Amino acid sequence: MSPRHLAYGLHAVRALLQHEPAAIARLLVAGGERGGPGELAALAAAHGIPVEPRPTATLDRLTGHATHQGVLALLASPPQPLDENALEGILAQAERPLLLVLDEVQDPRNLGACLRSADAAGAAAVIAPRRNAAGLTAAAIKTAAGAASTVPFVQVGNLARTLRFLKGAGLRLYGADARAHTSLYDTDLAPPCALLLGGEGQGLRRLTRELCDGLLSIPMTGAVGSLNVSVAAAVCLFEAVRQRRSCPGGPA
Amino acid sequence: MSPRHLAYGLHAVRALLQHEPAAIARLLVAGGERGGPGELAALAAAHGIPVEPRPTATLDRLTGHATHQGVLALLASPPQPLDENALEGILAQAERPLLLVLDEVQDPRNLGACLRSADAAGAAAVIAPRRNAAGLTAAAIKTAAGAASTVPFVQVGNLARTLRFLKGAGLRLYGADARAHTSLYDTDLAPPCALLLGGEGQGLRRLTRELCDGLLSIPMTGAVGSLNVSVAAAVCLFEAVRQRRSCPGGPA
Repeated sequence: MSPRHLAYGLHAVRALLQHEPAAIARLLVAGGERGGPGELAALAAAHGIPVEPRPTATLDRLTGHATHQGVLALLASPPQPLDENALEGILAQAERPLLLVLDEVQDPRNLGACLRSADAAGAAAVIAPRRNAAGLTAAAIKTAAGAASTVPFVQVGNLARTLRFLKGAGLRLYGADARAHTSLYDTDLAPPCALLLGGEGQGLRRLTRELCDGLLSIPMTGAVGSLNVSVAAAVCLFEAVRQRRSCPGGPA
Repeated sequence: MSPRHLAYGLHAVRALLQHEPAAIARLLVAGGERGGPGELAALAAAHGIPVEPRPTATLDRLTGHATHQGVLALLASPPQPLDENALEGILAQAERPLLLVLDEVQDPRNLGACLRSADAAGAAAVIAPRRNAAGLTAAAIKTAAGAASTVPFVQVGNLARTLRFLKGAGLRLYGADARAHTSLYDTDLAPPCALLLGGEGQGLRRLTRELCDGLLSIPMTGAVGSLNVSVAAAVCLFEAVRQRRSCPGGPA
């Protein structure tokens, strides 16, 4: 069984059951567990999904000893990335688009955490290059806690071309860069915009940075002075949420 | 060798070398690696710390195949938690204290991520109960990317007593609770305060919640509607940073 074809953990499986039950072929539930897995088993049964009790050790083995919380979904059709052709429709549907662009983020858990935060912040999509970047692996799907089934994840062949398309569609592009002089908090994120974050090691690539309408930094006061990329993404996304909340209409 | 006595990854080892070089007994560097590990090896040598080349496979084995980035510090004295007696001094040193309190967060990687964000936001300390909560394991130290050596981590025997002490010291206690009617963004975080976040499963415990001066929620618009605890902590901490930035003086 390919590791892409699993989803596990209470959040991830609950979201799948609620949003894409047809994606689940079977549900394995640790024997003797109560609470979360039992509730999900009932939900699965209501959708006609076979529920099979298994020893915890079996779930440990199938997930490579990840934190499965006693529940594992075997997927008929795992969450699939979209391609660049989906972007026009995504933008057309969003009233005031907020996008997250990840430039060569490598760790699938960081991708998953970004999907989860993007969902919570109401982002219209998460965009990443197809090459040199994490994809929707089982680890990403688990960390996304269900959001891999709810937030469009768009993998593109040429990120620069996609960024030019987004600019042409009227979005402003803001790149997070620790060296930027402009603070996140002085950047107007109320209009349609995309937030760009770079990979774990080197940040945004040169061409990506050059295509941005502006660069912004998160003010840091500590000794270490860096944030995990998924945490930085969440801080930026929720600053957009805050700004848009206080000006619900058009651009600020 | 106890897994507590390792630190690995470029960020974590660099911060240790800069802030607590005496804590490092030896540095193991993957043979043939350039860049990061080489720079750290030079820094270690300047501190008189023995630097030993090792095959990458050895570092893989010692770290349990974690992302060590070619560098592993064997610690003479690993980062140590403080106890409740340290709090008075910590508060006395902070001009306008911002604390993060984790109520039974179980995953050491979440603890580590919280320490990293707390450092970046300039928090004076991270507080957690000694029991039923993650401690400073190797995984926590790695995820903290150096912040385990820079942000005081205070483990307390009785969290309720500590919360009463903080209130007595003039701090306001704000608990993050998804059901709270008050938004994070409508909460005044400029005065001295502590932000309380609950564990991965059940959130804040009842007594912890009752001791809060106020509860706040992060506005969620997505389908999944939950944030990882370390991401929620960062969003709250950086909202405090934002508010304090615009009113650098006393309480807002």
